[in-house]
Amino acid sequence: MRVGVLCSGGDSPGMNAAIRGATLRGVDVHGFEMVGFVDGWRGFRDGETVPLDRPAVRGLSGVGGVFLGTSRVAPFSSVLDEVDFDAFRARVADYGLDAFMLIGGNGTQTVASILHDHGVQVIGLPKTIDNDLGGTDYTFGFDTAVSIASEAIDRLRTTGDSHRRCMVLEVMGRDAGWIALHAGMAGGAQAILVPEFPESLEQVCEWVTSVRDRGRSAMVVVAEGFRLAGADHAVTRDGLDGFGRPRLGGVAEQLAPLIEAGTGIETRATVLGHVQRGGAPTAFDRVLATRTGIAAADAVLRGEWGTLAGLRGDRIELVPLAEAVGRLKTVPEDRYAEVRLNFG
Amino acid sequence: MRVGVLCSGGDSPGMNAAIRGATLRGVDVHGFEMVGFVDGWRGFRDGETVPLDRPAVRGLSGVGGVFLGTSRVAPFSSVLDEVDFDAFRARVADYGLDAFMLIGGNGTQTVASILHDHGVQVIGLPKTIDNDLGGTDYTFGFDTAVSIASEAIDRLRTTGDSHRRCMVLEVMGRDAGWIALHAGMAGGAQAILVPEFPESLEQVCEWVTSVRDRGRSAMVVVAEGFRLAGADHAVTRDGLDGFGRPRLGGVAEQLAPLIEAGTGIETRATVLGHVQRGGAPTAFDRVLATRTGIAAADAVLRGEWGTLAGLRGDRIELVPLAEAVGRLKTVPEDRYAEVRLNFG
Amino acid sequence: MRVGVLCSGGDSPGMNAAIRGATLRGVDVHGFEMVGFVDGWRGFRDGETVPLDRPAVRGLSGVGGVFLGTSRVAPFSSVLDEVDFDAFRARVADYGLDAFMLIGGNGTQTVASILHDHGVQVIGLPKTIDNDLGGTDYTFGFDTAVSIASEAIDRLRTTGDSHRRCMVLEVMGRDAGWIALHAGMAGGAQAILVPEFPESLEQVCEWVTSVRDRGRSAMVVVAEGFRLAGADHAVTRDGLDGFGRPRLGGVAEQLAPLIEAGTGIETRATVLGHVQRGGAPTAFDRVLATRTGIAAADAVLRGEWGTLAGLRGDRIELVPLAEAVGRLKTVPEDRYAEVRLNFG
Amino acid sequence: MRVGVLCSGGDSPGMNAAIRGATLRGVDVHGFEMVGFVDGWRGFRDGETVPLDRPAVRGLSGVGGVFLGTSRVAPFSSVLDEVDFDAFRARVADYGLDAFMLIGGNGTQTVASILHDHGVQVIGLPKTIDNDLGGTDYTFGFDTAVSIASEAIDRLRTTGDSHRRCMVLEVMGRDAGWIALHAGMAGGAQAILVPEFPESLEQVCEWVTSVRDRGRSAMVVVAEGFRLAGADHAVTRDGLDGFGRPRLGGVAEQLAPLIEAGTGIETRATVLGHVQRGGAPTAFDRVLATRTGIAAADAVLRGEWGTLAGLRGDRIELVPLAEAVGRLKTVPEDRYAEVRLNFG
Repeated sequence: MRVGVLCSGGDSPGMNAAIRGATLRGVDVHGFEMVGFVDGWRGFRDGETVPLDRPAVRGLSGVGGVFLGTSRVAPFSSVLDEVDFDAFRARVADYGLDAFMLIGGNGTQTVASILHDHGVQVIGLPKTIDNDLGGTDYTFGFDTAVSIASEAIDRLRTTGDSHRRCMVLEVMGRDAGWIALHAGMAGGAQAILVPEFPESLEQVCEWVTSVRDRGRSAMVVVAEGFRLAGADHAVTRDGLDGFGRPRLGGVAEQLAPLIEAGTGIETRATVLGHVQRGGAPTAFDRVLATRTGIAAADAVLRGEWGTLAGLRGDRIELVPLAEAVGRLKTVPEDRYAEVRLNFG
Repeated sequence: MRVGVLCSGGDSPGMNAAIRGATLRGVDVHGFEMVGFVDGWRGFRDGETVPLDRPAVRGLSGVGGVFLGTSRVAPFSSVLDEVDFDAFRARVADYGLDAFMLIGGNGTQTVASILHDHGVQVIGLPKTIDNDLGGTDYTFGFDTAVSIASEAIDRLRTTGDSHRRCMVLEVMGRDAGWIALHAGMAGGAQAILVPEFPESLEQVCEWVTSVRDRGRSAMVVVAEGFRLAGADHAVTRDGLDGFGRPRLGGVAEQLAPLIEAGTGIETRATVLGHVQRGGAPTAFDRVLATRTGIAAADAVLRGEWGTLAGLRGDRIELVPLAEAVGRLKTVPEDRYAEVRLNFG
Repeated sequence: MRVGVLCSGGDSPGMNAAIRGATLRGVDVHGFEMVGFVDGWRGFRDGETVPLDRPAVRGLSGVGGVFLGTSRVAPFSSVLDEVDFDAFRARVADYGLDAFMLIGGNGTQTVASILHDHGVQVIGLPKTIDNDLGGTDYTFGFDTAVSIASEAIDRLRTTGDSHRRCMVLEVMGRDAGWIALHAGMAGGAQAILVPEFPESLEQVCEWVTSVRDRGRSAMVVVAEGFRLAGADHAVTRDGLDGFGRPRLGGVAEQLAPLIEAGTGIETRATVLGHVQRGGAPTAFDRVLATRTGIAAADAVLRGEWGTLAGLRGDRIELVPLAEAVGRLKTVPEDRYAEVRLNFG
Repeated sequence: MRVGVLCSGGDSPGMNAAIRGATLRGVDVHGFEMVGFVDGWRGFRDGETVPLDRPAVRGLSGVGGVFLGTSRVAPFSSVLDEVDFDAFRARVADYGLDAFMLIGGNGTQTVASILHDHGVQVIGLPKTIDNDLGGTDYTFGFDTAVSIASEAIDRLRTTGDSHRRCMVLEVMGRDAGWIALHAGMAGGAQAILVPEFPESLEQVCEWVTSVRDRGRSAMVVVAEGFRLAGADHAVTRDGLDGFGRPRLGGVAEQLAPLIEAGTGIETRATVLGHVQRGGAPTAFDRVLATRTGIAAADAVLRGEWGTLAGLRGDRIELVPLAEAVGRLKTVPEDRYAEVRLNFG
C-alpha cells in the first residue's frame, strides 16, 4: 500500500503532528510506503515529493506550521465541471499511489469528496484554525488560535485598565466567529462580535458604556467578518471606503473610532493577524492531530474511503465526507446567547 | 431561589471560571441569590460564607486555584451509613438554601448523588485534573495539567538530548493515566507508563535502548500510580522500600535507577508535582469551566436536580449523577494501544 | 516622611512591581507614609489618591499594567516657561508630601528634573518599553516587550516557512529601534529595520531574495519609526499617503507590498501593537522593577533628591536626573553592525 | 584561521544561540573555518567533530539544549599536576586548530585559563544557569532558569492559596542562591533561603506563621544548597539521614515536614529539577548568548587570547580569564538584605 499525503490551504498548528501520527502508524505499524507532496497540489503538479518515514517526522509533534509546505494551488487545471478525472487518476497512477490523505479545511475536503466520487481512494484529515468544518467537534489548530487570542486579551486588558481605555481586538473568522467566541469567553470580554450575529453600533456602545459605569475598561473581541447591523454604519467588507479608496484597515480599525465617537471613551484597536496561526501547537491540538493521523492510517488499512477522521466527544470517528462538507459550521444561536446575556 | 456553591477536594484550574460563569448567569440573568462556602465543607460546618455576585467574580476567568478555598473536610460528621440526613437538611435550611452547586471530583459527586437521593436539590460540576470522572468527555483542569506536563516534556527533551540521557517524568494519576497519556502523546514520549497497563522492566528497558540505538535520547512519562509488571521489581506503592524504610521518592525516582541499571544509559528523574494543578487555566479549561457554570445555573432554574453538567462533544449536557459516579474513568485499551504500538 | 507615587505616560510591565517594592520598603522598613495618585497627574490635579501599604500592593509583582492608573495629562496647566512653581509647591504642600516618586519615561523624567531644579524633592523611576532612556542599562518593561515580540517572530516563522512567504513584523519604537533589535536578534530575523539606520528598498529586497535563494523564508522585523533611505520610496510618517489621504496602516503595511513587488515573493505584514505593552511582566522585569522601587525608597530615606534609580550592570545606582534626561538613548552603530553583517 | 568549539559541563539554555552567533560571525564575516566537538571533551578525545557553518546552525537561536552535545568528561586523562601539555598541544595540532572557543561554567573556564597559560589560544564563553561565574554580570541560561522557576511560583501560589497551605519550592543552586533570589523576588515569595545565608528553623517558621496571620499562604523558595542554621536541625547534605540511610529527597522534602511541625500549617514540597535547565531560552538569554558568540568570534580575529566574553552593563567585554575564574560569585549581603527585610 503506497499512500500520498498532501496539505492544502492555510497552515494550521498540528499539521506536523498529524503527518507524524499518520506516518508512524502507517509505515511502522501497517507497513505502508508513504510520500508527502511538497507545497500541496503544487508538488503534485510538479512532481515534487519527499518520502515519509520515522526519521522524516522525528521531533515534529510540537512544531508549528507544516514541514511539507502548503499552498493555495488548485488540484485541477480546469474548472471542476470540466475536470478530466481520467487524467487525474492517471497522474495518481504515475505516482504509484493506492491512497491519498488530504489535510485541509472546507475547500480541500470538498475536493476530497469529489475525488472520492470519481474513484480516488481518499481519507480526509480536517484542519482549520477557524473551526468551521462539519463532521468534527473541533479541528486541530483551533485550540492553538484560541489560546493565542486569549493570551492577547489578557495582555490588552492590563494596558486598557491602566489607561481607562476600551480595547478592541480583531481575531480571525471571516464567516464563522468561533475564535472570537471562545477566546472572548476565556478572556471574559464584555462584548464578542461575530459574523453570524450583527449588532448595532448603539448596542455595542451601550455595552462599552455600561462597563465604564461599573468602573472598568471594556474589552471587545471582534471576528474579522463581523458587520454592524443597519445601513448607517460603515463597517463594510468590500475593500473600499466611502470615498472609493482601498481600505487598509480591518474591522477593528474601523470599529474603534466609531466606538470612541459613540461613547466618548478612548478606544484602541489591535489586529492579531498571522500570529494566530503560527507557532507551537497546544497540547490539545498535538493530541487531536496525532490521533487524527493515526485514525487516518487505520482507515487506509481498512479501506474506509471517502471519510473524514473527525473528533466526536473523546473519540476519533470516520464520518462520510459527503456529510461533512458543503456547509460551513457556524456559531449557533444558543452558543452566542450563552455569552451575550452577560455582555456589558 | 437561593443557591449555595461549594468546592471540595483538590483544586483544579478553571474552578474560578466555573463559579464566575454560574454567578453571572445565576444572579444577573436568572435573578438568583447566591452564596459561596469558604473552604468547602469546612465553611459549611463553621458557617463561613461569602455572597456571590458580579463584583465578587470580577476578572476571575483566567485565575488559577479557587478564591472560595477548598478542603478535604468531609460533609458529614459520621460515616455515611449512619448519617443523620434530617440534621443535614436542617443545616441547609438554616442557610436558607434552595439548591446546591457542588464542584468536585469523584468523591464529591458521589456525595452529591447521595444528597440528591435524600432530597437535597443539587447539581454537580465535575472537576479534577485527573480526568477520571464519568459522565463527561473531559473535566476542567485536565487540559491545563496536560499542557503543563507537555511543556515540561519539551524542556526535559532538550537537556536529555544534550547529555544523551534518558529522562523520566512523573506526572499525576494515581489510578488513571490520562495526564501521562495525553502529555506523553503531545510530547512524543517514547514510553508512556500508566496505572492501567503494567509493563515489565525488561520491556521498558528495551524501549529505552531502541531509542538510543536510533541515536536519540528516550523520554519516559510515568503516571504516579504505575507499577512494574511481575513480582521481582521493587516499584511499589506501600511506602516502604526493601529494607522496611519509609520511601521518600515517587515512582520516577524508583524507576530511574532501575532503567539505568538495565540499559547502561544515564537516567534522570523529575517529579512534576503540585505545579501541575496550579496557575492560570488554559483557554480550553476557561471555556469548558465557564460553560459548565452557565449550564449549572440553567439546570437550577429548570430544577434538573441530581444531574452533572458534563461535556458531550461540543455541548454541555446534564447527566444523571447516578450514571456518572461510582466507577473511575480509566484509560481504555484502544487509547493505550494508539501509543504503545510506536513506543521505543 | 510622607511620599507620593505618581505614574505618567504609557504603561509598562513592571510598574506594579516597582510600586510594590517601593511600598514594602518605604512603609514596612523605613516607616514612611505613602500615597499613590490615581491616573497620574490627573489624580494630582483632581485630588484623587489611594493610600499605599502592604495590603494595597499584595500579589502585584506579576501583574501587568499599573493599578494606580496612568495618563498623559500634563503636570502643569501652562507651558513650562511660564509655570507657576510656587503654586505647584503649594499643591504639593496641600497633600502634605515630603517627597515624590515619579515613574515614567523621558518626558516624565524631564519633568522630574525640572521639579528638582525648583526645589521639589523627587526621585525618578525609569520606565518605558522602548528602552530609550539614558542613565540606565535597561528600563523595566523592555524585556517583556522584547519577549512578546520574540514569541511573535517564532510564531510567524512557522507560517512563513509553510507558505514560502516573507513575513514582516512591525514592533514599537518610534525613535529608537531597541525592541526590533533585540527581538529580531532573539528570533534570528534576516533583516532588522530601525529608525536609526535607514536602508534602501533595494537593500531590503536583496536580503529577502538571498534568504529565498538559500531555500528559506525571510523574517523582517521593522520598528514603527523606520524610514526607507532615498526619496523614491513612499514609507513616510506624515500620516498621509501619495494621494493626500490619511494612512491607516503602519510601516509594515506599507513595506510589505513594496517588498512583494521588488522580489516577487509573497509578503505579509503583522502589526504587533498594544499586546507588546500588556500582560504579566517577565521575571527579569519583575526583579528589575522591584529593585528599582526598593532603591527609590532608600534614596528617599537618604535624601538623594534629583536622581534616577538606574540599572548599571547588576546593581541599581542613583544617577543625577540631569544626566539621564534630555537626549534619547538610541541604538548605536556597533550594535546595529552586530546584526547587519549577517542579514540576508 | 581554524577554530574549534567545545562545550563542557551541564547544558544551559542559550548554548545553541552562542554557537550560532559565533559561527555566523566567524565563518561568514571573518572567513574562519570552524568545527564543533561532539559531546565536549569526549568528542575531542575520540575524534568526533562536525563542521560549523550557516546551514549547521540554521534556526537554532531559540532551541534549548545544545546540538553538539555536552558531557562531564575531563579534558585531561591525568590529574592537572601531571598533565602532559605537550601531548595536549599535539592533539590540538592534529585537529589543525588555531584557536578554541570553550563554552562552560566555572570548571570549564578554569581549564580554559590553564590551557591559555600553556600556550593554547583560547576564548571563554561563560555559561551556567547558576549565574555563579565571575567576570560577567549574568551568564546565559540564568534568565531562562529564573523565568521557569518564577512561573512555577505563580502556579504553586494559586494551589497554596486554595488550600491554605505553605508551599516550598526547591530550585537549583548548590553553592550560590541566585536562582532562588531572583525567582523568589519575581514571585513575591515570603521567604527565600539561599546557601550563603543560613537561617534557623525558628526564623523560617516565624515568617510562615506571620503570613498565615495576615490571612495568606506562605511561599518559600529554597536553593538546593541551603542549610538550616544551628546544629539541632537535620537538613544536611551528606546524603545520609539520622539513621545512616541514604536520603532520596532534597532540601525541600526535608524542610517541608519541619515547617509543618513547627507551625501547624499544612506544607507541601516541590522540587523543580531538570525542567529548570531545559527548553527554549528566553529572549534575554538568546540575545546575550548570540552577542557572546559574536564577541568571541571578534576576539579570535583580534587574537585576544585568554579572555572571557562577559556582559558588563549593556556591553560584551573581554575579561582576562584569570580574573574571572577561581572563586564563585555568590549572593552578596546587600542583595539578600533587599529581600530579607520584607520576609514574612
